[in-house]
Amino acid sequence: MTVHALEAARRLAPRFAARAAEHDRDGSFPVDDFRDLREAGLFGLMVPRALGGLGASFAEYAAVATELARGNGATALVFNMHASVTGALGAVTEELAEALGVPDEALAARDRLLAAAAQGSWYAVAMSERGAGARLSQLSTVYEPTDEGWHLKGSKTFCSGAGHADGYLVAARGSTDQSVVSQFLVPAGDGLTVEPTWDALGMRATSSHDLHLDVTVPADRLLGGVEGLALVVAQLMPHWLVASYAAVYVGVARAAIDAAAEHLNARNLAGLPAVRARLGRADAATAAAQLVVAEAARRVDDAPGDAETNRWVWRAKLLAGTTAAEVAASVLEAAGTSATRRGHPLERLYRDARCGSLHPATSDVCADWLGIAALGGDPDRDGSAPRW
Amino acid sequence: MTVHALEAARRLAPRFAARAAEHDRDGSFPVDDFRDLREAGLFGLMVPRALGGLGASFAEYAAVATELARGNGATALVFNMHASVTGALGAVTEELAEALGVPDEALAARDRLLAAAAQGSWYAVAMSERGAGARLSQLSTVYEPTDEGWHLKGSKTFCSGAGHADGYLVAARGSTDQSVVSQFLVPAGDGLTVEPTWDALGMRATSSHDLHLDVTVPADRLLGGVEGLALVVAQLMPHWLVASYAAVYVGVARAAIDAAAEHLNARNLAGLPAVRARLGRADAATAAAQLVVAEAARRVDDAPGDAETNRWVWRAKLLAGTTAAEVAASVLEAAGTSATRRGHPLERLYRDARCGSLHPATSDVCADWLGIAALGGDPDRDGSAPRW
Amino acid sequence: MTVHALEAARRLAPRFAARAAEHDRDGSFPVDDFRDLREAGLFGLMVPRALGGLGASFAEYAAVATELARGNGATALVFNMHASVTGALGAVTEELAEALGVPDEALAARDRLLAAAAQGSWYAVAMSERGAGARLSQLSTVYEPTDEGWHLKGSKTFCSGAGHADGYLVAARGSTDQSVVSQFLVPAGDGLTVEPTWDALGMRATSSHDLHLDVTVPADRLLGGVEGLALVVAQLMPHWLVASYAAVYVGVARAAIDAAAEHLNARNLAGLPAVRARLGRADAATAAAQLVVAEAARRVDDAPGDAETNRWVWRAKLLAGTTAAEVAASVLEAAGTSATRRGHPLERLYRDARCGSLHPATSDVCADWLGIAALGGDPDRDGSAPRW
Amino acid sequence: MTVHALEAARRLAPRFAARAAEHDRDGSFPVDDFRDLREAGLFGLMVPRALGGLGASFAEYAAVATELARGNGATALVFNMHASVTGALGAVTEELAEALGVPDEALAARDRLLAAAAQGSWYAVAMSERGAGARLSQLSTVYEPTDEGWHLKGSKTFCSGAGHADGYLVAARGSTDQSVVSQFLVPAGDGLTVEPTWDALGMRATSSHDLHLDVTVPADRLLGGVEGLALVVAQLMPHWLVASYAAVYVGVARAAIDAAAEHLNARNLAGLPAVRARLGRADAATAAAQLVVAEAARRVDDAPGDAETNRWVWRAKLLAGTTAAEVAASVLEAAGTSATRRGHPLERLYRDARCGSLHPATSDVCADWLGIAALGGDPDRDGSAPRW
Repeated sequence: MTVHALEAARRLAPRFAARAAEHDRDGSFPVDDFRDLREAGLFGLMVPRALGGLGASFAEYAAVATELARGNGATALVFNMHASVTGALGAVTEELAEALGVPDEALAARDRLLAAAAQGSWYAVAMSERGAGARLSQLSTVYEPTDEGWHLKGSKTFCSGAGHADGYLVAARGSTDQSVVSQFLVPAGDGLTVEPTWDALGMRATSSHDLHLDVTVPADRLLGGVEGLALVVAQLMPHWLVASYAAVYVGVARAAIDAAAEHLNARNLAGLPAVRARLGRADAATAAAQLVVAEAARRVDDAPGDAETNRWVWRAKLLAGTTAAEVAASVLEAAGTSATRRGHPLERLYRDARCGSLHPATSDVCADWLGIAALGGDPDRDGSAPRW
Repeated sequence: MTVHALEAARRLAPRFAARAAEHDRDGSFPVDDFRDLREAGLFGLMVPRALGGLGASFAEYAAVATELARGNGATALVFNMHASVTGALGAVTEELAEALGVPDEALAARDRLLAAAAQGSWYAVAMSERGAGARLSQLSTVYEPTDEGWHLKGSKTFCSGAGHADGYLVAARGSTDQSVVSQFLVPAGDGLTVEPTWDALGMRATSSHDLHLDVTVPADRLLGGVEGLALVVAQLMPHWLVASYAAVYVGVARAAIDAAAEHLNARNLAGLPAVRARLGRADAATAAAQLVVAEAARRVDDAPGDAETNRWVWRAKLLAGTTAAEVAASVLEAAGTSATRRGHPLERLYRDARCGSLHPATSDVCADWLGIAALGGDPDRDGSAPRW
Repeated sequence: MTVHALEAARRLAPRFAARAAEHDRDGSFPVDDFRDLREAGLFGLMVPRALGGLGASFAEYAAVATELARGNGATALVFNMHASVTGALGAVTEELAEALGVPDEALAARDRLLAAAAQGSWYAVAMSERGAGARLSQLSTVYEPTDEGWHLKGSKTFCSGAGHADGYLVAARGSTDQSVVSQFLVPAGDGLTVEPTWDALGMRATSSHDLHLDVTVPADRLLGGVEGLALVVAQLMPHWLVASYAAVYVGVARAAIDAAAEHLNARNLAGLPAVRARLGRADAATAAAQLVVAEAARRVDDAPGDAETNRWVWRAKLLAGTTAAEVAASVLEAAGTSATRRGHPLERLYRDARCGSLHPATSDVCADWLGIAALGGDPDRDGSAPRW
Repeated sequence: MTVHALEAARRLAPRFAARAAEHDRDGSFPVDDFRDLREAGLFGLMVPRALGGLGASFAEYAAVATELARGNGATALVFNMHASVTGALGAVTEELAEALGVPDEALAARDRLLAAAAQGSWYAVAMSERGAGARLSQLSTVYEPTDEGWHLKGSKTFCSGAGHADGYLVAARGSTDQSVVSQFLVPAGDGLTVEPTWDALGMRATSSHDLHLDVTVPADRLLGGVEGLALVVAQLMPHWLVASYAAVYVGVARAAIDAAAEHLNARNLAGLPAVRARLGRADAATAAAQLVVAEAARRVDDAPGDAETNRWVWRAKLLAGTTAAEVAASVLEAAGTSATRRGHPLERLYRDARCGSLHPATSDVCADWLGIAALGGDPDRDGSAPRW
């Protein structure tokens, strides 16, 4: 399958790249990119084959995400959120469902969501809140049961794809028992209001706006069918919260090198030793980061959540973020002032690349966790308070 | 004097800072900043006291430029061009004028230009051309004598302040003897057309647009009164072509640290060890770059053009450029995603800071020259072909 | 096989580590380490199974070398030379032999050398000369035919294992036709004199002394049986000249992290945030370098000499060398002054680690080649003059 | 005066350099260097003119120390300890003495010690203890009054110059009231035993051995004449505990650049672009560190102990330490394997240079303190527990 998906991603990337400057300039959503993704069947990437999807592994996802990001990192980031939702839903095995007490009808509902994705629907994630960040333990969005299902009320921020997705994964806490955090798949439509707050340094086309909810959803939109599963799932699948970004930033770094090479060759500057040294070191660093992401992804498939797997996930996040930022800064310096004009790919990539280290878990947090592990400790127990 | 000028710069900086976001967003020229500069008498900073100016040294200029840049680096960069013109004109001593064969009436004309600056006029520089960069030896703008004076025709690029200055220092080559390069001070007005091409990653408010010339100027607008002095002056005053940028980027780096500290304190994140390590190292690097710029400037005043002076000039350019970029990138990472929203000072400073290494002579070129000198060679003789 | 070999390497590493301080102090050859290697059968690592060896791939070699280097990098470096000789000899297929015009008796002689290695002999490399470095084109050691075989006369330097090996791979040029460079496997014994010149910053136990030759060897000691094959083989197997070092330095970097962690835990300093940040970043960088070495090795096995394979070889050499040096410097800083006492593992590892970037091709040369390739060029055609 | 002292230092540096390799190899004390220092009158550098000394300022000391370190960093480090003792003693003004309750006879005793230094005596510092480090609050060496004066008993470590100095500044705590820490100037002779424990990576010639004390000293050897002044003095003069090292490491960095340039020129490698880039960036970084040290020293003279002065002291310590290590590592890489032979200046300088960041306050601690200050905090209040 992934040969097909990977080929599709490679085929689409130049089309994304051709549109990237405009979306970056306007902060507009790459609607055409998402139509391309739908038509290529990539919304079903993480959907099990039995439900009509491509049944990709996490490693296959990572390879696809890197290729998409070589075209447009912002598109790849939004796609990443959809892949996270479908990937996490698809990864709930029958054994796990049984252990968690998920009723059969909830599994059926889950299957319907996944089948819809395979048919061309895509989902965004509405998790973060102002003040709480991405920390599930501090949410202020609440839900309560109604006759028709569930009523959700609250405000989310950094919701990539807001206003464009077919559904939103929303985390909320119970209005009565506030220690219970549950997740809902809220369909697009009435009751959702997008406040266009996203206007950022980089990754401008993600439309990561605020999303205000005052909406009632059917009963089967409670994921898992029982309340309180959100924290459990987060702990089971940290790779979707940490590592999936990494693949995107490897693509951004590689795109920066390619853009610099093209720029420098066009100006006959490829012979300058300083230029060659910059591109050579950038190439080696990017190749290394790509291998680390692939290794982390492979281990996520083999042994998700294991201590050693998590170390690779943190390494991937740390190296992809720092490498993208350093590579883009260095090759832009190699390319010179003419590459800083708005509309030049390097001008955008320099801004996009800076964002990787800032996504949770930040580079500094990953370095701390890795250091604890290298010293024989347990980051869960000994770590600095996470910023997410 | 400079106590006064430095105090004025410090007083103005917060006003510039308050306007910086808007000008950065729109790419609009900071008209109000320049009115403030005029009212503070700073257009006369480099004008000899005998001509009504403040008679500042290069070291005093550097200190003022750094303070202005803490408010808005773009404003400081444009001001730098005016200071370069007036500084270079003011630095032509009678001895030098005699040695170069400058006629008395040319000195008188020079004095009128300087006196006008002291009165509130300011000048931009129209040197670079597409294809030629800033290399005087490859200009395509030409001039020829006419009955009224000189006719100039050609196109310039990267002309900071285009459309706003009262006059433009224009380099052109003779239409008959193309080896002769002369400089003119062209007054604003008819015959000059601004093409708004400047739309860049950083330093967006400099209005460094293209300037098309098809204009006749009076005879006394030929600087020096004799043709062919442009290259001579360039060689005599390399600090204005290289080091004057450096002071600006030290201010940008310091502004980034200050903005990060304010941001982090407001969010109660000052206690995070990784945050402290980033700000501490940024502070030390910036303080060092500031001292190097001051030392270079002091030596320029004492022994302009000396080999050892030039080494300090290159060190200043190299360190200011690299430090600003690294400092801004690191403290933005410390501040986190919320500081990447457009309109946040760090979002702008991160982009502005990347530009310092790219101004000629680039960081890589400066490193090469310094390496040659450290190895006992002569960069003029042994250096890589400069990119400017 | 390699499971066995890798396990053996892991079993031996702590024994090497226990002896490393003494050999480093005295600059003495790790005789006991080599006895261990012999007894573990590792001299046959690269010898085809048909000749009694383990028939390891290059990737398997790299994994073994890294594990050995975690014990003692110097031992691993000497072992690397033996592996290079046996690996290159073993890699000459019948097709290649036929294409090169290698006579049958030469293949039989080759097989005897390999079988001897499988039985416990090991070989060193005597290639470099003062003045010529490792450049085959500039050798001054000469050979001429005699009744008994070949007479070789000249002096070599940087001959790791000199005085301890059972045989030496010697490159020499013809005394009549100086453009012909041939290689001989010279047995230890009379005619070879070791001049103990090796007394270096790091990797002190390699005994990389000078070797003076005035010796006659039997006719079948001319490798390949025909003169002039040396340059051909060098071009066919660049990985043994470049990448095989890389695996060693990954082991050195990992050993430094492990030693730092042990040191810091023993002093209850593992909780310091700066310590954790240093170890975390060191861990990520080392893990990345290890993956790059493994990837390069895998590609060497699959497509030796291909352009893309060579890029991975250069990346491996660049990253392993720079990573080892940076990691050792950083974790030594984390560990503090008490770890700088002679005899402390980190004291030695800091010195050993600095050597990786200096082996040919140096890090700077690799960066140049990678830059050329990233810019679409061909390093063989466009590269700086190599320093080896 | 300092013109004289600085010239003397410059004159002596090449002599120190010529002896450095031998002392480094053997770990022997540079006896001849210290005879040279005595003969040049430099033991009186910090002694007030009224007592026969040169009356140097801290800034003058820093300049001298850097020049000495260009010859041999180890010699400069030991000299630094003597300068610290005489500088701190000389800096106690009559006002301060009165405020601290120092009796007249103690000032007279102090003057005798300083006058002896001006005559050619020199003093070492015996402060650190195993387990306690340099933290005065955790000393185990005790003193008690006797009929003849004071009896001291305990063991010190890292006592640079042990066995060669004419006297030792010893910190000890009272045997009855353990919260009282006092300092004594113990003359060389019976009761002091040197245990040769110093055998380190770098700065090997400092003879920083262990010193065991079981000795009685005359009453007037209690510095200040009253017990308990040690902590007060430490707080008043932090520059002698932190910044004085920095000047030494600037000299080490500059020596490394000079040695690399000489090595590369001798081999006709000065034309390699990568070599030039390395030396150019090393030159700029070292020049910057030197300015920061000079600025810190100037401020120490003007406003010792002020908050802003202390920031400059930390900047100096941080930048000198990190710069020396990075510069030496980079220029050694530029110079190549032939510069790693023992006895080559770069081989030694690479090891010496690594030590600067490790002296208290370490680079990581300085970065933390600077970060706290940049964030508006007070390192004394908010800092991590210092490691010294």
